[in-house]
Parts: sequence; structure tokens; C-alpha cells
Amino acid sequence: MTRTSAEHPRVAVSTVIFSLRAGDERPAVVLPLVRRTRDPHEGLWALPGGWLGESENLEAAASRTLAETTGLAPSYLEQLYAFGDVDRSPTRVVSIVYWALVREDVSGRLAPENVAWFDAASLPRLAFDHNQIVEYALWRLRNKVGYSRIAHGLLPAEFTLAELREVYEAILGRRLDPANFRRQVDSSGTLIPTTRFRTGNHRPARLYHYNQDVELAERGPLHR
Amino acid sequence: MTRTSAEHPRVAVSTVIFSLRAGDERPAVVLPLVRRTRDPHEGLWALPGGWLGESENLEAAASRTLAETTGLAPSYLEQLYAFGDVDRSPTRVVSIVYWALVREDVSGRLAPENVAWFDAASLPRLAFDHNQIVEYALWRLRNKVGYSRIAHGLLPAEFTLAELREVYEAILGRRLDPANFRRQVDSSGTLIPTTRFRTGNHRPARLYHYNQDVELAERGPLHR
Repeated sequence: MTRTSAEHPRVAVSTVIFSLRAGDERPAVVLPLVRRTRDPHEGLWALPGGWLGESENLEAAASRTLAETTGLAPSYLEQLYAFGDVDRSPTRVVSIVYWALVREDVSGRLAPENVAWFDAASLPRLAFDHNQIVEYALWRLRNKVGYSRIAHGLLPAEFTLAELREVYEAILGRRLDPANFRRQVDSSGTLIPTTRFRTGNHRPARLYHYNQDVELAERGPLHR
Repeated sequence: MTRTSAEHPRVAVSTVIFSLRAGDERPAVVLPLVRRTRDPHEGLWALPGGWLGESENLEAAASRTLAETTGLAPSYLEQLYAFGDVDRSPTRVVSIVYWALVREDVSGRLAPENVAWFDAASLPRLAFDHNQIVEYALWRLRNKVGYSRIAHGLLPAEFTLAELREVYEAILGRRLDPANFRRQVDSSGTLIPTTRFRTGNHRPARLYHYNQDVELAERGPLHR
């Protein structure tokens, strides 16, 4: 058995799960990690995942991992990349990695044992090549936010323009000019104003929702 | 041994290799396929590929397949997608699929036994889910041609605007207005005019080359 596992690369499925930490401060992009309880890399944090089941499709394995780790259903789930370098693990493992968005504020949620949420901008050293994988997933997220309504995957059904801008700022890692942002969003045709307003300490701000005719992101003929 | 292979999904690497068939007619997008000489699907045509070697990186496996099938080095090679549905093959196989562009006119080349080049627009029924895979690769190619200089991967170093337009037409599967095309290309800043002209039966046409400062396609932090 040992010999066979040395002959054939094994297949794992992992998932980079992005959410927003809301609260008093500006929102931040966060992701859950699992502390490894055995070698290799015992004690380090790693992406949630596991071996691909014999009778399980790839996306089903990613969804299962996501549910087990967060107790949530994703608002967006897409295959990211297959990582298969010979030296990425002591035994040969090809990891099919998915990335997902979950919409709920995860700040106060009770996580399963050995699971914790980390700020994507300041991760510790992770197991295997998982730092590189998260970096690539963030790059994909930043790219998608530019040409699709993917930010909706992190927002509730209705939101103000300031809230939308703060999601963009959290993803892109930089501040955006409010007036420019409003102009760009207005001209994109993806937002529909409602007749409701957010009231509170500030002056009332109009609530918007996304035009549901526009897909979260164009995913091509594989997802019809 | 047999039992083990039934327990663990196996990993294959396949490659969709696009090139152009030039000649008297308009160029067409073509790809090489390999006739299967054993079951499953004996006699059907399939994408070139094979099992991932134990000490072989994914991209190396794709390059090896490409060299064995075409004798050529690719001008572009990128991971397309991992296909892993339970029922895509009689045994459980996860195929990591790459797609590649090769620049040379492959019309007259001698192909290895059991290899033939097919017009991407009129494929026969292929083995496994390979029709679906080619369809997805074509979608990726069409998408990329819109926002990158990926067409350069199918062109020689210098070319006329008409030749560039014909490559776009072959990829997109529709005719483009020459004057509009010239305007769009001019304003993109990706082409540099030379002082040379293509002469022949028509009036002389200026030769261009691509601005090499612009990458074939933005591939993110994985390819630095």
C-alpha cells in the first residue's frame, strides 16, 4: 500500500473561503484556516480541505469542506487552480483548489475546534504552499471585482454606496475616492436604487441592490 | 494493487493545443487529436495526454505531451481547468487540462502515427468529456483575445493588419469590419508599425509587430 501511494500522486481538494469582518472599523477580507494536528507541518495553519472521495465530484468536495469549516453555504464558488509541484508536500499531492465567497458577517461566529478566521492581509506562515495559494486567490478576487459584480457575493441584498465602496477598498487594499466611485458605479448599470434609506448617526443614505440580470461573474460554458 | 487504484482517483494531464491552418483559404483554428488504440473508447479521437509522472510537475507533463504530439514548443501554455466528475471515465480520473498555442503553420507537417489535426469548429465525437473540454478551451481563447495580445501566440514576428484580423476572425468565428478593426488596434497601443511592407498580388501592406512590453496575457502572481 505504501509503495502504491508513492507511485501515484494523490488528489486533495482545498478551499480558500473569503468573507468580510464587519464591526466598528472598516471591513476587512478574512478567511478561515485549520490548525494541523499531525505531520507534516503539525501546528501550522492550513487551508480547509481533504482527500477527494472516490464517489465525490470536485465541486462537491469543496462545498463539503466549506460547510464543515464554516457551517455556511457560499454565495460564490469557483475552481481556482490545480497545484501539483513535486516538492510541495513530502508525498506527492495534487491539490485542486476552489475559492468561495460567504456573505455573512463571520466576526462573532463560533468556529469548530482548530478553526480560526485570519485577516487575509496579515497571515502567519502557513503549511505547504498555502501562502502562495491564498495570494493567488486574492489576485483572482481583485481581478474579478474590477469587471464583474463579484463584490455582491460579500454584501447583503441591500446596501449603501459607502458600504459597497468599503467592500471594494477591503478587496483592493486601498482607499477609493467616493465621488469617482459613485460615478463609475452609476455608469456601470449594475446597481438599482431602492426607495429605502439607511438611517443612523449620519445623514440618510440611499439603499441599492444589484441588477440580478447580471451574473456574479462570467464563468463560461462549464456553468450553464 | 487493483483495489488501491479503485480507492484513489488517478491524475492525468491533457493539453488542448491550438494552432492555425494557413494556406489559400482564410486561416482556421486547428488542434491535434490522438486516436485511442485501447479501451475505453478505442478508435475515438482524444486530447493528447497521459498519466502524471511521479517526479513530474503539472506544466512539465503538459509540455512533454505537446512536444511528443507536435514536435513543437508552445508560444503560450496555461492551465485551463481540472476536470474530475465521477462519471467522466469508467475508472476515477482527474484530468488537469492545459491549453497551448503553437505558432507554426501545421498544415503540411508530418504528424506521429495516430495523430491528426482537426478543425476546431467541426470536431467528431471525442472520447470521454473531451468535446466539452475543447469547447471550454475555445471559450477561454475567445475571451483572452478580447483583452490581451494572445493572438500574437498564433502569429509570426511581423504581420499585416489583415493577417491579424484574420486570426481574430478565425478565433471568434465571425467576420470583422476592417476599418473598425484598424481603429481599435490603433488605439490599443499594443502594435508597433515597422518600415517594411508585405508585397505580392495586392497593394503593399505595412508590417507590424507587437509591443513586447505588453505580456501575452496577465497571469498573476503564479507566473513571475
